[in-house]
Amino acid sequence: MTTALNRRSWVESANGHADFPLQNLPLGVFSHGQTCPRGGVAIGDRIFDLRAATEAGVFQGPAADVAEVASRDQLNDFLALGAAARQALRAALLQLLDEDSPQRDRLQGVAGLLLPMSECTLHMPARVGDYSDFYVGIHHALNVGKLFRPDNPLLPNYKYVPIGYHGRASTLCPSGTAVRRPSGQTLAAGQNAPAFGPCQRLDYELELGVWIGPGNAQGESIGIDRAAEHIAGFCLLNDWSARDIQAWEYQPLGPFLSKSFATTISPWVVTAEALEPFRRAQPPRPDGDPQPLSYLLDDHDQQGGALDIELEVLLRTAQMKADGLAPHRLGLSNSLNMYWTVAQMVAHHSVNGCKLQPGDLLGTGTLSGPQEGQYGSLLEMTAGGKQPVTLPNGEVRMFLQSGDEVFLRARCHREGHISIGFGECRGVVLD
Amino acid sequence: MTTALNRRSWVESANGHADFPLQNLPLGVFSHGQTCPRGGVAIGDRIFDLRAATEAGVFQGPAADVAEVASRDQLNDFLALGAAARQALRAALLQLLDEDSPQRDRLQGVAGLLLPMSECTLHMPARVGDYSDFYVGIHHALNVGKLFRPDNPLLPNYKYVPIGYHGRASTLCPSGTAVRRPSGQTLAAGQNAPAFGPCQRLDYELELGVWIGPGNAQGESIGIDRAAEHIAGFCLLNDWSARDIQAWEYQPLGPFLSKSFATTISPWVVTAEALEPFRRAQPPRPDGDPQPLSYLLDDHDQQGGALDIELEVLLRTAQMKADGLAPHRLGLSNSLNMYWTVAQMVAHHSVNGCKLQPGDLLGTGTLSGPQEGQYGSLLEMTAGGKQPVTLPNGEVRMFLQSGDEVFLRARCHREGHISIGFGECRGVVLD
Repeated sequence: MTTALNRRSWVESANGHADFPLQNLPLGVFSHGQTCPRGGVAIGDRIFDLRAATEAGVFQGPAADVAEVASRDQLNDFLALGAAARQALRAALLQLLDEDSPQRDRLQGVAGLLLPMSECTLHMPARVGDYSDFYVGIHHALNVGKLFRPDNPLLPNYKYVPIGYHGRASTLCPSGTAVRRPSGQTLAAGQNAPAFGPCQRLDYELELGVWIGPGNAQGESIGIDRAAEHIAGFCLLNDWSARDIQAWEYQPLGPFLSKSFATTISPWVVTAEALEPFRRAQPPRPDGDPQPLSYLLDDHDQQGGALDIELEVLLRTAQMKADGLAPHRLGLSNSLNMYWTVAQMVAHHSVNGCKLQPGDLLGTGTLSGPQEGQYGSLLEMTAGGKQPVTLPNGEVRMFLQSGDEVFLRARCHREGHISIGFGECRGVVLD
Repeated sequence: MTTALNRRSWVESANGHADFPLQNLPLGVFSHGQTCPRGGVAIGDRIFDLRAATEAGVFQGPAADVAEVASRDQLNDFLALGAAARQALRAALLQLLDEDSPQRDRLQGVAGLLLPMSECTLHMPARVGDYSDFYVGIHHALNVGKLFRPDNPLLPNYKYVPIGYHGRASTLCPSGTAVRRPSGQTLAAGQNAPAFGPCQRLDYELELGVWIGPGNAQGESIGIDRAAEHIAGFCLLNDWSARDIQAWEYQPLGPFLSKSFATTISPWVVTAEALEPFRRAQPPRPDGDPQPLSYLLDDHDQQGGALDIELEVLLRTAQMKADGLAPHRLGLSNSLNMYWTVAQMVAHHSVNGCKLQPGDLLGTGTLSGPQEGQYGSLLEMTAGGKQPVTLPNGEVRMFLQSGDEVFLRARCHREGHISIGFGECRGVVLD
């Protein structure tokens, strides 16, 4: 077997693929034509059909049982199995799909084992029991805070508490689902009474999503030193936001209708194992910042719990699409902008006995960088809707217009490693 | 057939039963001994086993299909069927269980059809996809607001927006589940940095829960004139709250860990039909209050969309229990203290296109009355933890202690109608 760096697949499109080389192997739920939704693995521009593989008996030993579980119409059961099962399946897939695999000829003879991704429909990978959204992007918190409180942008709890709130699970949707502009109450400047109508300040938010694995019982908690065991995988997450509705409704209980109309995710679960080479030490806290309380502090997590993932948001207007123009990058950021690690989010979330379950989803919050060009929302780019953004074709945006399509992308690079990506997280705004 | 007022059941314990006379017939999910969870109907001190009834073929016509759906291990499928199906089942049950039922002898011969409720375990009646908690108890909002902003207790949005937020579905639990005191971060008075430890200000909240019926598709909304079609039933709901954790964490995204450790509900779904006699006109808004925006305004709802349900919260300490004392009433309130109707909550929740699904649960928020003796939380009773409550046996409480058991009760009375109740919503605090 060759080293991970050089390993290539007999699935030719995987070699050099921007998102899905052999080293990634994310899981998802898809359908092809009239087939029922089932589990699959992305490899190049193909989907490896786990049900077809299971039925053809291509897996041996423990991986066969895991593959059967992962071939169902939701990945919740698979996520519940935990890291050892995930790793067994990954090891088997790496072997089967390697260009030197002894089973190569046999696999190429299994009908329907590798389907063109372009012919498939990607579904939600799991039934999300609960979705929680955090606020760990400190530059986003600073940028937004400055708009409202220039002298005191961060609230006193921010550097102690991984701030989060409960989101809406029912309106999570996979990439490609159109997003209808919500209506709601808004208070115009200088008015005392609100009006009802379509949102005028529709925005995106560039986030990572985190898929929970086994989880904990109600009344128990997940210690920071065990948190990694419950972090199964990752996706991109666009937390569409109606800024005008949000500004009027959010006191005192937080965002509600301004967020609950739609949240788009990328449909592939990029596993913790695939991201292992892109782990980093948590960047040191700036001088003067408090240390995390002990229930949030773990040496192993501090030394390798951060993720180095390049994050990008792009926009294609209806005009650009009509003119055949590619999406235009609005912001380029990185998940190292997280003030808290994912393990800290999990430990905090469960420290009160809150039950986390397989297939629960956590959002990180908007992961902006500190500088212009690194912002993860239009709210930040336009300084609260005051400075319009001019696109290369001359169009101008303060917030999203009808027909605008928003793309999120994630890519991991590291010297000496094959790059991997997350696939598509895309949604078009409809009125 | 006699009139509804006088109708009695051949199930003797139903006649004069405080909660479950023939006129109530709430649905739930229960198990008895080693049986699998299944749907049942409360009648007096018995549970009418819908699965046994279905298997014995006691239902005829459309009600037979509905009864089969309601006999499953969750009521989501039944809730999805909507009002006509619910009414068909209710009509059949009223006939079967009436003391003059021609089927009385036959039913009495069906083994295991009526089980002693005291021998059964009540489960969550449905799998809650999403749980949202509102804040429509205006006196609670005023009482709590006065503690923090004496001159301006209500925020400007309160009389326009049925304020709500997303809650945690995974830790909803049925009556009788013990509640472990949560730990978390709190900021002591005069300190700049928080400490971690067990909650010292643990509280209850007296609420109604609302079970959603068919619901709406993502991107659609439920108009106020159609909202009643999606309101299937009601329960009691104790929104356990860690006040010290809440005070430190809730800015800017709202309550999170202070609420997500446990929420107790009464396990019987009291149907919209059973509550029909206890409907009232929405009390007129005080002079000077704005009228609801048009998407929240419907004549039919204004004339009959409010509910007259007496609500009670009681406490029994470990000492009281050891001494054989009954629970002591802490507060007596009424659901007429809701500033917004349940239909207004549903119309608002979905107006942005948020998908409501069968088995989703809404909480009303704490339903305090305006006066002493009518408060639905200790926070209000003790004026923010400053004025202790003295119990009849001399014990003193500011917030809940270990071993304290909290009971919520609901009862509907109306001249000319048989009273009905909601059954038990009980939880004991453990450390």
